[in-house]
Amino acid sequence: MGRVTERRRVIRIRDGAVSTRPDTLVAEEPMEIRVGGKPLAITMRTPGDDFALAAGFLVSEGVLASADELANILYCAGATSGGTAGPDEAESGGGSNSYNVVDVRLADGVPVPDISLERNVYTTSSCGLCGKASLDAVRTTARWALDTSPDTPVRIAPETLSALPDRLRAAQRVFERTGGLHAAALFTADGELLDIREDVGRHNAVDKIVGRALQQGRLPLSSAVLMVSGRASFELAQKAVMAGIPVLAAVSAPSSLAVDLAVETGLTLVGFLRGSSMNVYAGEHRITLDAAATTG
Amino acid sequence: MGRVTERRRVIRIRDGAVSTRPDTLVAEEPMEIRVGGKPLAITMRTPGDDFALAAGFLVSEGVLASADELANILYCAGATSGGTAGPDEAESGGGSNSYNVVDVRLADGVPVPDISLERNVYTTSSCGLCGKASLDAVRTTARWALDTSPDTPVRIAPETLSALPDRLRAAQRVFERTGGLHAAALFTADGELLDIREDVGRHNAVDKIVGRALQQGRLPLSSAVLMVSGRASFELAQKAVMAGIPVLAAVSAPSSLAVDLAVETGLTLVGFLRGSSMNVYAGEHRITLDAAATTG
Repeated sequence: MGRVTERRRVIRIRDGAVSTRPDTLVAEEPMEIRVGGKPLAITMRTPGDDFALAAGFLVSEGVLASADELANILYCAGATSGGTAGPDEAESGGGSNSYNVVDVRLADGVPVPDISLERNVYTTSSCGLCGKASLDAVRTTARWALDTSPDTPVRIAPETLSALPDRLRAAQRVFERTGGLHAAALFTADGELLDIREDVGRHNAVDKIVGRALQQGRLPLSSAVLMVSGRASFELAQKAVMAGIPVLAAVSAPSSLAVDLAVETGLTLVGFLRGSSMNVYAGEHRITLDAAATTG
Repeated sequence: MGRVTERRRVIRIRDGAVSTRPDTLVAEEPMEIRVGGKPLAITMRTPGDDFALAAGFLVSEGVLASADELANILYCAGATSGGTAGPDEAESGGGSNSYNVVDVRLADGVPVPDISLERNVYTTSSCGLCGKASLDAVRTTARWALDTSPDTPVRIAPETLSALPDRLRAAQRVFERTGGLHAAALFTADGELLDIREDVGRHNAVDKIVGRALQQGRLPLSSAVLMVSGRASFELAQKAVMAGIPVLAAVSAPSSLAVDLAVETGLTLVGFLRGSSMNVYAGEHRITLDAAATTG
C-alpha cells in the first residue's frame, strides 16, 4: 500500500486511562497537476493512483474525454507511465512514487486548458445567481449528454441500490484501519462492483475512478452507477455528469446545487441510501419503482 | 435563515413504499472572493456570513491578521458592509445577499496577494517530499507562533474535551433539518461555546469562525479550542495555526500531514473525540493528564 497510510505515535485516553501507542493514519500529501509542464491545480490527496487522479481531474475539467487525447503522464522527477492503464500496483506501490508533481502530456491537437481558469472551470467570474453560471458551464463543457429518454437502457432496482453501501464498505481496504478516508465505487446497474478508490478527499476518490476508466477507454460510463461514502455535493454530481455516469448514489445528503444540476442534466441522484430507505432527488425514471406501491 | 436551506421535491422509498414530498436541503452556491477587484479564489459554500468567510479565507492565506488591515468588504453588485462585525442577520438574511461575488478592500499598505498563487499558498510548485514544502510555507506565513512552553496558560481537561461534541451538535441549527452540513465551533478552555458556524464545506465553516474573530478584533485566538464535526485534514490544522488557535479537536480521524503540521507548530491535535475516549496526536502538554493514570 506504500504511503496510503502512515504510522504516528498517539496518546490514547479511555475513561481516564492514558496510554501511548502507534496509530495508523491515512496519508495526505499535496499533488500538483501540470499540463504540458504548466501548473494547473494542486490537490491534497492520498498518494496512489496519481496518474489516474490527474487524468480524472482533467475529465472533470472538460480537458480529456478519451484515452486517445492523452499522450502520457509522468512524475516531474522522471518516473513515467503510458497513457493507457497499467496494473494498479505499478502506480500506487513501491518507491517510484516518491514525487508530488505529475505532468500530463496531451495528444497533438488537444487544446491546452486556459491556465487562468485554474480550478474555476465550473464557476467562472460571473455574478451568477444561484449557481446559474455553474450549471451553464457544465452543460456547455460536457462532451456527451446523459440518455434521458423514458425507455433508457439503464434501470436499477431499489433493492439493488440498497445493497451498494454494504458492498462499498466491504471493499474499502484502508478505512477500517484509519477511519479517515472517503470512498467512491463504480457498480453496474445489477450491483456488480467494477472499481473502488479511497482518498482523504472525496473528489479525489471520484477523479481516480474516472481517470482509470479514461485510461482503459471506458468513457463515457453510460451504464454505471457511482456510489460515494459521504454527501453528494455539486462537485461530485458534476464529476459524474462529465464522465457520462447516469446514476449517483450517496450515503448522506445532497446539496441544493447538486439536485439542481441533476435535474438539468438528467442525472439520477439518490441520497440517504441506508438500509431499505433512500431519497430520489432527480432522474427517477431510471429507478424501477413499483407503481402499485406509489402513494401521494 | 435566508438561503441556508432550500426546498426540493423528493421521492422517498421506505421498505418498498414510495411517496413524494418536499425535502429540506442545505444550500450550496459558488462564491468568488476578490481582493481589490481581482479574483483570488472561488469556493462552493452555504450562503450566509459571506463577508466573514472572505475575511477568514484571507487569514488562512496569510493576507490578513487584524481588523486594521481590512478596509471593507462588499458584494460586487453594490451591497456593502464595514470591515468590523455587524449583526449576523445583516449578512446572512434578507434579500440583499443575492450575489455570489465578494470584494475585499485591504487597508492602505497591506500587500495584495500575488494573484498567481491562487489557492496554492500552502503548496507552491515544488517537488517537495512528504509535504515538506507545505509545512515550510505555513511556518513562514503565520504571523504569530503558538505558545509551546510547558507552562502554557491554555490547559484543557479531558472531561472538558469530552463534553464538546454534544455541545457542538446541540448548537447546530441546520444539520438536523438537512443532514448535509459540517460544523466548526470555538470554545474556551473551560468548554464554553464562543461561536459556531455550519457550512456545506468544512473549510468554509472554519473560515467563517476565523473571519468573524478577525472582524471583532479577536485574533490571534490564543486561548481558544476549535472543534470540527468531521475529520482533521491538513487544511483545517493549517487554518487553526494561521488563526493562532492552540487546540484543534475533531470527531473523526486526522490525516498524516495534519499530525505533522501539529507537531511542527506545537498545535494540540485531538482526534476520535467520542464519549470519554480520544486520541491526542500532538501538543499533549495542553491536556491535563493525570500522571498516575498513565501507562506504558
